[in-house]
Amino acid sequence: MLIHLSSWPEIDAYLKSGQVLAKTVIVPIGSNEQHGPTGLLGTDWLCPEIIAHAAEKADETILVAPTFNIGMAQHHLAFPGTITLRPSTFMGAIADWVSSLARHGFERIYFLNGHGGNVATIEAAFAEIYAEWSFTPEPWAERPPFVMKLRNWWDLPGVQKLCEDIFPVGHGSHATPSEIAVTYAAYPDRVKTATYEPKIAPTGPIRDANDYRARFPDGRIGSDPAQATPEKGQQIIDFAVPALIADVNAFANEVLPVA
Amino acid sequence: MLIHLSSWPEIDAYLKSGQVLAKTVIVPIGSNEQHGPTGLLGTDWLCPEIIAHAAEKADETILVAPTFNIGMAQHHLAFPGTITLRPSTFMGAIADWVSSLARHGFERIYFLNGHGGNVATIEAAFAEIYAEWSFTPEPWAERPPFVMKLRNWWDLPGVQKLCEDIFPVGHGSHATPSEIAVTYAAYPDRVKTATYEPKIAPTGPIRDANDYRARFPDGRIGSDPAQATPEKGQQIIDFAVPALIADVNAFANEVLPVA
Amino acid sequence: MLIHLSSWPEIDAYLKSGQVLAKTVIVPIGSNEQHGPTGLLGTDWLCPEIIAHAAEKADETILVAPTFNIGMAQHHLAFPGTITLRPSTFMGAIADWVSSLARHGFERIYFLNGHGGNVATIEAAFAEIYAEWSFTPEPWAERPPFVMKLRNWWDLPGVQKLCEDIFPVGHGSHATPSEIAVTYAAYPDRVKTATYEPKIAPTGPIRDANDYRARFPDGRIGSDPAQATPEKGQQIIDFAVPALIADVNAFANEVLPVA
Amino acid sequence: MLIHLSSWPEIDAYLKSGQVLAKTVIVPIGSNEQHGPTGLLGTDWLCPEIIAHAAEKADETILVAPTFNIGMAQHHLAFPGTITLRPSTFMGAIADWVSSLARHGFERIYFLNGHGGNVATIEAAFAEIYAEWSFTPEPWAERPPFVMKLRNWWDLPGVQKLCEDIFPVGHGSHATPSEIAVTYAAYPDRVKTATYEPKIAPTGPIRDANDYRARFPDGRIGSDPAQATPEKGQQIIDFAVPALIADVNAFANEVLPVA
Amino acid sequence: MLIHLSSWPEIDAYLKSGQVLAKTVIVPIGSNEQHGPTGLLGTDWLCPEIIAHAAEKADETILVAPTFNIGMAQHHLAFPGTITLRPSTFMGAIADWVSSLARHGFERIYFLNGHGGNVATIEAAFAEIYAEWSFTPEPWAERPPFVMKLRNWWDLPGVQKLCEDIFPVGHGSHATPSEIAVTYAAYPDRVKTATYEPKIAPTGPIRDANDYRARFPDGRIGSDPAQATPEKGQQIIDFAVPALIADVNAFANEVLPVA
Amino acid sequence: MLIHLSSWPEIDAYLKSGQVLAKTVIVPIGSNEQHGPTGLLGTDWLCPEIIAHAAEKADETILVAPTFNIGMAQHHLAFPGTITLRPSTFMGAIADWVSSLARHGFERIYFLNGHGGNVATIEAAFAEIYAEWSFTPEPWAERPPFVMKLRNWWDLPGVQKLCEDIFPVGHGSHATPSEIAVTYAAYPDRVKTATYEPKIAPTGPIRDANDYRARFPDGRIGSDPAQATPEKGQQIIDFAVPALIADVNAFANEVLPVA
Repeated sequence: MLIHLSSWPEIDAYLKSGQVLAKTVIVPIGSNEQHGPTGLLGTDWLCPEIIAHAAEKADETILVAPTFNIGMAQHHLAFPGTITLRPSTFMGAIADWVSSLARHGFERIYFLNGHGGNVATIEAAFAEIYAEWSFTPEPWAERPPFVMKLRNWWDLPGVQKLCEDIFPVGHGSHATPSEIAVTYAAYPDRVKTATYEPKIAPTGPIRDANDYRARFPDGRIGSDPAQATPEKGQQIIDFAVPALIADVNAFANEVLPVA
Repeated sequence: MLIHLSSWPEIDAYLKSGQVLAKTVIVPIGSNEQHGPTGLLGTDWLCPEIIAHAAEKADETILVAPTFNIGMAQHHLAFPGTITLRPSTFMGAIADWVSSLARHGFERIYFLNGHGGNVATIEAAFAEIYAEWSFTPEPWAERPPFVMKLRNWWDLPGVQKLCEDIFPVGHGSHATPSEIAVTYAAYPDRVKTATYEPKIAPTGPIRDANDYRARFPDGRIGSDPAQATPEKGQQIIDFAVPALIADVNAFANEVLPVA
Repeated sequence: MLIHLSSWPEIDAYLKSGQVLAKTVIVPIGSNEQHGPTGLLGTDWLCPEIIAHAAEKADETILVAPTFNIGMAQHHLAFPGTITLRPSTFMGAIADWVSSLARHGFERIYFLNGHGGNVATIEAAFAEIYAEWSFTPEPWAERPPFVMKLRNWWDLPGVQKLCEDIFPVGHGSHATPSEIAVTYAAYPDRVKTATYEPKIAPTGPIRDANDYRARFPDGRIGSDPAQATPEKGQQIIDFAVPALIADVNAFANEVLPVA
Repeated sequence: MLIHLSSWPEIDAYLKSGQVLAKTVIVPIGSNEQHGPTGLLGTDWLCPEIIAHAAEKADETILVAPTFNIGMAQHHLAFPGTITLRPSTFMGAIADWVSSLARHGFERIYFLNGHGGNVATIEAAFAEIYAEWSFTPEPWAERPPFVMKLRNWWDLPGVQKLCEDIFPVGHGSHATPSEIAVTYAAYPDRVKTATYEPKIAPTGPIRDANDYRARFPDGRIGSDPAQATPEKGQQIIDFAVPALIADVNAFANEVLPVA
Repeated sequence: MLIHLSSWPEIDAYLKSGQVLAKTVIVPIGSNEQHGPTGLLGTDWLCPEIIAHAAEKADETILVAPTFNIGMAQHHLAFPGTITLRPSTFMGAIADWVSSLARHGFERIYFLNGHGGNVATIEAAFAEIYAEWSFTPEPWAERPPFVMKLRNWWDLPGVQKLCEDIFPVGHGSHATPSEIAVTYAAYPDRVKTATYEPKIAPTGPIRDANDYRARFPDGRIGSDPAQATPEKGQQIIDFAVPALIADVNAFANEVLPVA
Repeated sequence: MLIHLSSWPEIDAYLKSGQVLAKTVIVPIGSNEQHGPTGLLGTDWLCPEIIAHAAEKADETILVAPTFNIGMAQHHLAFPGTITLRPSTFMGAIADWVSSLARHGFERIYFLNGHGGNVATIEAAFAEIYAEWSFTPEPWAERPPFVMKLRNWWDLPGVQKLCEDIFPVGHGSHATPSEIAVTYAAYPDRVKTATYEPKIAPTGPIRDANDYRARFPDGRIGSDPAQATPEKGQQIIDFAVPALIADVNAFANEVLPVA
């Protein structure tokens, strides 16, 4: 089920259904930021959305929230079209999403992430949320009524290896051919071409936006994204979907320790 | 152009193109919240997205940002599927979106809003953003390099009247047949039916979530949404699109006073 | 009763008295900002204070808090004497006032507002306050122990019509002859005169402070405030006082729905 | 001049007048909190307002802002009628007042304080405001364009001694006969009487509200406020007014060091 | 016991031991800031650490937390090596320390402070922490499960007098010979010498960093720190240690009022 | 040089000396949290302090700030003695430290970290700091005048391998024998022994404090810390010191790209 295309009684009924995934919700989360000369600005939120929606098509008991489409991309701000939240804003927004979902009785909140630059802030957000509970003085029998999990889509079992098998050279770490291929599979009329050099982009540290643009003039890091095709993207999606379904089920079934 | 399906060089070229709308961007903004027994939870962010994307199809020089899909819906939290930001978080996020867009040189930022409950907070956010500039001591020649505008899609010239003409009875103010019809036009396979009573929902003040649910048990306020059909929704969209294009052009061409 | 001229045992006794208004408190709230060439900088907080204090004189069971005299006036900052809170600060302060009053057992908190520019932020503040309660997970029987209401003094039943009857031309929307007249009635030795032109000020959008001053060089919007006299102000006050008393009683007696 | 009873052109003209006090403004600041069985809840903001307004009457070149009437009184919250800001909110509001006044060109901002419990937070607020400037990296020639001063009215030269001379026994530190006398002088129809014991209230540490009420059941600390009379209050006011005028002039004339 | 050199089972056992000081913890708190031409930058956090650790050596039942070494020193920022927190950050950090310690069951939290410039912010922080409890509406039987105390080391009974006896001339208020002597006693290999003039530094108000440096070019206020020696420092430490032990025991044994 | 044992003229002179490391400063940063049955609560801030101070002894041109001793340890709060900052507080404090150091002209700020749980929040803090600069609109020639680097001490080249060579079994990830050994080398009189089982602790996810304690009852994760000895700790320190010196020099000499 896609929450945004459901009615509240449908969600209510599912929450009360007793099904395996009834208390678990997937939040696709990413970023809107430059992805080199040929990548879509939405790549990092489109990828988890594409994979999560495909999983929902394959298994309707998967529940998917709207996509959290703006993340932490301050280092990409020297490239037009990038939109970012400050880390502190991002953390506040994640907390509000989680509070909203927990309000309804969701107990397992699974963030399927599409942007490496989000990871630190999402983890800090989780810690901020848990801290409210952790500060509760003894007797401390009470636990938060939910747990959260962060999973990058490329860290679903086997996916990263598949990507590197498909793109053994020039995969890189930003504007990678694999992420761009995933979006091309979903939006084949948006395939773009460009000449760029060097063929494989440089690598280096990530700091502020101007430093980034000086180091990586066309936005790529270590990648050669011209290798991306819709077909290769579909191959990745097809592999990632069952991996996601399995991972979500494992999370839903994880037994929590008794305090 | 849709930002998220464009590359950064495409946005860059457009920004430098000198075209009428080159420095203007539309941000569809809404909310994910219950919309009665038959409405989609995403109604309030889908409506501005649907209309803005249709406008972009009609006129490719319209530039549309990703949709800001979670707004201020605290009063709907007693209905599953609702997701909200606190007003303070919402304001911080709007500020970051605006700072990002202004960073690239956008000078006119147009929020096409789909949720009445967002209006107060968006206006407060605008004031918070402007205040930074307004506090600057004399000599105060400097102005913010951008202006912001909030427009509810139903306040586009003629739209509200059209909606009331189509639904002269039971239009109401939440889960209205017009907004639901717009989403049905875009997602005809998601048309839902339900029995509800009374036929026209009650009205009353809006406060916290439990108060809301006690007053409006199925979520509707003053509306009879069963009148919504995809055809009527398409009629509204077709009317709103040129109204939006005209409104955005007027905003882009507005002459600012010289200090 | 005026809280600030009472002792705590007097407030305590009243709270426990069982009288109709014993759990209801009025907070006059406004702004300190330019009001054109002839208006007092305090106009927007003086008006609700004047009306609320007159109501308290007419009916001693009306309880009035100190006046919240600084609101959201960032757009007036290019005119000396204006003092503003940022919206975020304003929201925090409103929350603290409400928490303080709720601490004592007040269950109905009525803000009598004197500044249109405050409305969005006050509503956002209410939503921020309610959100804390709305996020409380199920079982969600608990409600906030208080409700809040915002009423602009000119929106008291019949008042706006009276003002327009008295000033059929050049009433406008900022530095209006009606609000200035109300302050002249209370401070007749502060009546000011000035030459200004055009006789009726222009109108336009409200943005940052420099934009405002460029559009509205003497501060007025759409108004011809020279029409204000103490006598006309007294006429408005005399009409508004019973309207306020009735409105407050209705609020105090409003039956809340059972969750 | 009282800002709130002036028009903006009047303030503007004064700011440009070149007079000794033209860039100096007094902000009466206090608290609305219980003041024992006979004191007014408004005592702590009324006292500086009364003295500052009397000074303005005596010397019209004194410029007085509206009264900042709600301060830091969390420890009094167990007594009805008390209204407080959290320290963090208080600091934010002070910063906004100062930014507003500095925007207009005021260079010396003088807070005349009426509440001992405000002192720490006001000083912290000053440090927060100065810190923005202090963090500015080298070359660090720039200074803030304003300085701030905090003065408790009882610390005006000679005032505390006068109060202790008038009330040699039972002056105490909260709900003192001197502060109550000042308000009685201004509001003689609000003189209150009560029986209380012990005649002189106990003393002790100040912590949270419930601790406070348990230690000081009627709200007084170390005081015997029944000694307050309007006449004694007037005597204090008459002494404080020239002391304030002299202090403000000294502040306005203070030569700042050159960096 | 020093918390940072203990294991958690050792702290756990002590907390449950029933000993007099088992629920009391000392937090040495100070600042890292310039201390004139001969003083160590760490003086203000070293002094309370030195005295608290010496007390712990003398009486192992004294429990000492790690040292809170960065405080509020914005006014010293024009001198290299100074590190400060903004007051708002400082307050947030104090709240988190207190929440952490209260989580474990500590009921008396004693801050031994080494920096006069910290006092206002620490007191504001205490008020911010207590306010959360003070806002709790009636029935208000509940109290915070801890109390906090701030003690400057020089305000331990007899210490200030001793310092002035040892340094009757040129003690001053910043970079005093007494505080520098205390650090010299603990770090005798760090004794520094410098020529400076005037022999006794000037005094004046404390504002922003540039103002401070212009007034006090070598950082001292009113002091002649060349008088400091390790021997005099040891004399102060030897006097302060039993005073601290007595003060902490008194705090631990203080009977709280019953609400 | 250790900042806290230096005077400000010493730091000033060094900053202006033109030496290789003159604009570079090391901040040891860690956490105060449980480290299993035998580890010191201070382990995670003691380790980077020990290594940085040893490096400073080996090379006096290394400049070391005071230790940032409280980090992000919310998950350890169910063990007495743990003190944590919320991530948001931690980020604010890091920003203030950096602003302070940048104020003096430090251009390279190197955080030597001792706690894995700090990494996400420190990275989020860096992004928050850089974001202020990254949002600056075009023309965007300006860069922040400093860069920041995070290095965990075990990630210094070769260190992690050495630790695993010394402790091939039961190294684990919390309360590891290597980190405990480092503290034992510096505080040999604080070596602790305890019986625990299982010999090698379990592993699992990290969430809130109660979940943590339920999963890891004595606090260890995957480790067998009884293997720690002062000698092994010294071996690690001796290896880490030159690695740190080399790493800091490389950072100080890194050439930044020109925008």
